[in-house]
Amino acid sequence: MGLMSEAFTQAVIPVCALIGIVFALIQWFLVSRIRVVPSGLENGYKDHLMEEDEQEEGVDAVEVINKCAEIQNAISVGATSFLFTEYRYLGIFMFIFGVIIFIFLGSVKGFSTRSEPCTYNKGNLCKPALANAIFSTIAFWLGSLTSVLSGFLGMKIATFANARTTLEARKGIGNAFITAFRSGAVMGFLLAANGLLVLYVSINLFKLYYEDDWEGLYESITGYGLGGSSMALFGRVGGGIYTKAADVGADLVGKVEKNIPEDDPRNPAVIADNVGDNVGDIAGMGSDLFGSYAESSCAALFVASISSFGIHHDYAAMSYPLIISSVGIIVCLITTLVATDVFEIKNMSEIEPTLKRQLLISTVLMTIAIAGVSFFVLPSKFTLFDFGTDKVVKNWHLFFCVSIGLWAGLVIGYITEYYTSNAYSPVQDVADSCRTGAATNVIFGLALGYKSVIIPVFAIAIAIYVSFSLAAMYGIAISALGMLSTIATGLAIDAYGPISDNAGGIAEMAGMSSKIRERTDALDAAGNTTAAIGKGFAIGSAALVSLALFGAYVSRAGIKNVDVLAPKVFIGLIVGAMLPYWFSAMTMKSVGSAALKMVEEVRRQFNTMPGLIEGTRKPDYATCVKISTDASLKEMIPPGALVLLTPLIAGTLFGVETLAGVLAGSLVSGVQVAISASNTGGAWDNAKKYIEAGASEHARTLGPKGSDAHKAAVIGDTVGDPLKDTSGPSLNILIKLMAVESLVFAPFFASHGGLLFKYL
Amino acid sequence: MGLMSEAFTQAVIPVCALIGIVFALIQWFLVSRIRVVPSGLENGYKDHLMEEDEQEEGVDAVEVINKCAEIQNAISVGATSFLFTEYRYLGIFMFIFGVIIFIFLGSVKGFSTRSEPCTYNKGNLCKPALANAIFSTIAFWLGSLTSVLSGFLGMKIATFANARTTLEARKGIGNAFITAFRSGAVMGFLLAANGLLVLYVSINLFKLYYEDDWEGLYESITGYGLGGSSMALFGRVGGGIYTKAADVGADLVGKVEKNIPEDDPRNPAVIADNVGDNVGDIAGMGSDLFGSYAESSCAALFVASISSFGIHHDYAAMSYPLIISSVGIIVCLITTLVATDVFEIKNMSEIEPTLKRQLLISTVLMTIAIAGVSFFVLPSKFTLFDFGTDKVVKNWHLFFCVSIGLWAGLVIGYITEYYTSNAYSPVQDVADSCRTGAATNVIFGLALGYKSVIIPVFAIAIAIYVSFSLAAMYGIAISALGMLSTIATGLAIDAYGPISDNAGGIAEMAGMSSKIRERTDALDAAGNTTAAIGKGFAIGSAALVSLALFGAYVSRAGIKNVDVLAPKVFIGLIVGAMLPYWFSAMTMKSVGSAALKMVEEVRRQFNTMPGLIEGTRKPDYATCVKISTDASLKEMIPPGALVLLTPLIAGTLFGVETLAGVLAGSLVSGVQVAISASNTGGAWDNAKKYIEAGASEHARTLGPKGSDAHKAAVIGDTVGDPLKDTSGPSLNILIKLMAVESLVFAPFFASHGGLLFKYL
Repeated sequence: MGLMSEAFTQAVIPVCALIGIVFALIQWFLVSRIRVVPSGLENGYKDHLMEEDEQEEGVDAVEVINKCAEIQNAISVGATSFLFTEYRYLGIFMFIFGVIIFIFLGSVKGFSTRSEPCTYNKGNLCKPALANAIFSTIAFWLGSLTSVLSGFLGMKIATFANARTTLEARKGIGNAFITAFRSGAVMGFLLAANGLLVLYVSINLFKLYYEDDWEGLYESITGYGLGGSSMALFGRVGGGIYTKAADVGADLVGKVEKNIPEDDPRNPAVIADNVGDNVGDIAGMGSDLFGSYAESSCAALFVASISSFGIHHDYAAMSYPLIISSVGIIVCLITTLVATDVFEIKNMSEIEPTLKRQLLISTVLMTIAIAGVSFFVLPSKFTLFDFGTDKVVKNWHLFFCVSIGLWAGLVIGYITEYYTSNAYSPVQDVADSCRTGAATNVIFGLALGYKSVIIPVFAIAIAIYVSFSLAAMYGIAISALGMLSTIATGLAIDAYGPISDNAGGIAEMAGMSSKIRERTDALDAAGNTTAAIGKGFAIGSAALVSLALFGAYVSRAGIKNVDVLAPKVFIGLIVGAMLPYWFSAMTMKSVGSAALKMVEEVRRQFNTMPGLIEGTRKPDYATCVKISTDASLKEMIPPGALVLLTPLIAGTLFGVETLAGVLAGSLVSGVQVAISASNTGGAWDNAKKYIEAGASEHARTLGPKGSDAHKAAVIGDTVGDPLKDTSGPSLNILIKLMAVESLVFAPFFASHGGLLFKYL
Repeated sequence: MGLMSEAFTQAVIPVCALIGIVFALIQWFLVSRIRVVPSGLENGYKDHLMEEDEQEEGVDAVEVINKCAEIQNAISVGATSFLFTEYRYLGIFMFIFGVIIFIFLGSVKGFSTRSEPCTYNKGNLCKPALANAIFSTIAFWLGSLTSVLSGFLGMKIATFANARTTLEARKGIGNAFITAFRSGAVMGFLLAANGLLVLYVSINLFKLYYEDDWEGLYESITGYGLGGSSMALFGRVGGGIYTKAADVGADLVGKVEKNIPEDDPRNPAVIADNVGDNVGDIAGMGSDLFGSYAESSCAALFVASISSFGIHHDYAAMSYPLIISSVGIIVCLITTLVATDVFEIKNMSEIEPTLKRQLLISTVLMTIAIAGVSFFVLPSKFTLFDFGTDKVVKNWHLFFCVSIGLWAGLVIGYITEYYTSNAYSPVQDVADSCRTGAATNVIFGLALGYKSVIIPVFAIAIAIYVSFSLAAMYGIAISALGMLSTIATGLAIDAYGPISDNAGGIAEMAGMSSKIRERTDALDAAGNTTAAIGKGFAIGSAALVSLALFGAYVSRAGIKNVDVLAPKVFIGLIVGAMLPYWFSAMTMKSVGSAALKMVEEVRRQFNTMPGLIEGTRKPDYATCVKISTDASLKEMIPPGALVLLTPLIAGTLFGVETLAGVLAGSLVSGVQVAISASNTGGAWDNAKKYIEAGASEHARTLGPKGSDAHKAAVIGDTVGDPLKDTSGPSLNILIKLMAVESLVFAPFFASHGGLLFKYL
């Protein structure tokens, strides 16, 4: 037994979660003190700095604030209305899929209500399969709702913060940064704390029924992960199509044809574009990372429940994964204070180092915290389930597992930064290749994306090898959790990106001075990099999570080994490796088609509405919003169906071995496609920003805006849009979701699957 | 025992090979009757048709022929000199790598000269490991030389045929087509027959030493496959970088900046571009397909040698793979006669259907032939080695294995055609997306490439499942051989492409009329599609071949199963899946950098050499040739090293299981990257041609040349160049070569490998 009592464990998890929530509310309060309503000349903080600045900038205060408020309102209304429409569809899906889960799992034992002998905890009686079906369905719905809530809250915060960041940019880069970063933190902490709390409460409620049957309890809880990731899939794909259809459409006509700047209010697609940032990059990302977090917790809990922790009912040790997450919230809280209260940003070049420092601080602090938790919570020695055999593990083994995941995350983050930030040579080389036109830009960008895969994959491989060697599949699960333990900080710096992007858009639309636009652009450029880092984390953790889920699936499906040499497995492997391509083809084509429609509408407005280009008449923003909405809702169905149906079809028709192959194949192939797509897109975007900013001698030889090199860079940026914001980040959901779905349905596949081979 | 006697088998293989060689020589003779030297007004066939046509075209005959001859000579000299330079480097590599093979394999038993008990043929004595080391090295050198010879002969034929095709284009599309197709056939038959003959002779010579030790004999023979593929790797990568650096460089300045047509003689990079087609697409492709062919034969022979065929010394059954190839030559001969002598091409729209019909005819005929061979050569029932167990197989099982490979090849060919020919909607959609600029063109093209992977992967998966279920790893090997059994036809229609491309280039440079250029363009458009089909075949067969080699490796390394759940294997799997990206990053970046240098040189010439753009002064072609040569020789080393060192490092440091994971990972991931890259590039090229040709109402709304849509299409085409001609096709060599190298070095890894894990 560990040193921590059950009662203490029972307390520490909800307390940490509540601290996280309170901290998020405080941050929100601080952000809300910035007023977007003109009340005299006073605006937040009552320091009247703004007044002087306004005179300096020569912009009329009241009019600007009014304009900001109006734009913010338009974005917020657009985003809310889209999400509500999306959630209506998702509600129907949730209901139907929940019923499917119930029917599949209920039919495992023919809907019998008799208790069954346990599978792992030999000699005991476990609850009937029907109960597992019911509770899995409930857990699925809980996970879905929490995921939707995470996305929605994130969007609300982001649309609340965007105009405030713009207004603060007038006071200086430091204030604007703090506002955007604080708002990101609100989202990060709310999401991490909420996810933990709901999971904790669900486990305790489920336990009222399950009592001593921990096997059944944690089996049902995996539905929570499935719910989280299903919503995330649609959130990412739908949101991704929405945002990129608008973005690509706006750029193609605005920047390329009409030669008006990005986010120009004359562009009819500009509101849709800004709405898109919030529904795609914010709500989608929120659901996604929540999904990873829920799944890795579920995978760890499931494997633990069939190990000695579970069989001996060591509650404290069993809660180890949740305690790691709880402590993570506290660590991130301290880290955030460093950024907001210790250091101050004085100029643009400090933004990226500050964000990077956040990653480093949280990682170092977390390593110490993990050591403490591992020592206090875990027994010094225990046995873990390892595919039929038992493995003796020491508490410091688990410390290494969690830490290596954490540090692998940091490595992935730093490498991603290296390949996507325009402070380093890779992006500068891509920018340089624009000299010879768009074609070389695209070639160099693709090559950069491919290259950026190398080190992250090695980092993941090492994390897998070490954690598996030390603690089998449980090691992988907690290693994933380690990578996600600093999720609050990760999300904070990630959400910071789209908020800054929006802030820039609002500055442009409100007609603020170029000096302010320069500041928001600097925030945004750092945001592109942090967005790429966030995606790197999401993908890295997805890889670990899906491997852990894969392991859990294999044990639950009763497979002895997954032998590549078995033809059943190999065909699964090669087809699985193909799925990321199929999925990407669908999502990219969707963005392309939706963007074409957007282009036509924008062109139509410019051609048929006189006064639009002169700025004397307002464009019809609503039609563009509608095009993005309709396209994304319609187009998210086929890729969603591909991901959700593949495990069901493979498992039912071809059986558990083929499905295992599919999971392994999609995992090893999807990781590469996802990382390269995200980084390529990030690099193109920043290569363009590098030329636009003209901060170095080299950059100035390529610019200014409108030069041939810049035009080539814009083309690369546009190509990168669907790669980095639609197909790339959706792929990590593909690999996780198929794994968790297989895990949930494993009992059905094991007993009734493989129909095709049975009858052939 | 089968119905065919050993003596008959001994005869049928060399006889078929000789028939193939004679047929190739006849085709060459027919092509050579077209004169490129002006001898009066008579030109080949003595039908004086040309004379009338010339008057019709209003082009002076003698001057045109002289110009053609001059250009042809320049291309031929350039290609020959490049290949000789390349082969000098490759000679050094061959020598060193041969020595490495000898040292690694010799050290397995400490260079002992004592005979050892056989591994599979229990109770018998086999030749010492040292002998295997020596003969493997010799086989490696033989394979290398044959591969080099295949590439070189192909290049010679292609540079001989290009100008002749141009000249024949004056007589009409049919004559031009026949000339290009016949020349392709010369290459196809020479290569297939040569590969077979050298292998046959080597086996018989090696047998003089090995006598009854078939295990050792066929183990050593695998070195032949390794040699073939090593040369192919450098041929593909070096040639690919050469051709695309020139092509991209020429297009970027010529088409995009100076607005002069493709292949314009004023463009300094134009000769390098045309040389590139011959060293990359012809010599590289020749070596590549020879490698596939050699490897699948070696894999089949190796597995057979440790099955009942080998142990019972059933020579006829043992020769089954070689007899399949022999019969394939005869089938292809008949098929070729259908194209050259039965049907006649009267207009441009018939080209593609004719080429497609070639595939279909050869496949149908071959299926019948396989049935015959399977019935006559094989015993009706026999046992095959299946990873430690024996599997009883009937002769019609093998018929199915070979046939399914053959038909899977046809499916891949047809699907590739669908996705890359501008007669169908996918390419037309890509062309349509050019309306909104280069960015949507690139997005749609990438999506098309991803989508085109789906059906080929399913075809490969089904072929693998069926052939493995019927005849274990031997089934896979002969299934690969089935796909390659019509290699002579495949290569003929494949080599046809670059020859037509060159013919078009020569027509442009010689200043021929637009009517002739239109004909060569039509030939070339079909050539883009057939090139993609050829790459589809190369990749499909590579997938099967490497799986067969992988199986052979696993049995030779004594691995019981390759369990994905073992961390050693899984890290191999994920790192293996990353290798195609690393490799692509290197090759694409190489093309990009070399192209930038080329652009600078071309710009320099246009800027500093007055009279160049007016056509009054000849550009300095030689400097451009030198840039391509230097770049390709320098840049082919890192990707080559990556491929060749990975198995050595993985096997020596991490052991046979990790290496097995690497092979499986690179196989399942590489197939996807390779297919999508090839098809994307092919589609972009033909989307551009679709707009240029303006053959339909829709196409005309996008054109003409120089329109915005066309400019966007040119950018896509340029991006596609390195994808389709450098990284894509090199990837199939990556997956095969790593597999065959692992097979050859397996005894060493099995006895001395895994150092890192041993000492940790």
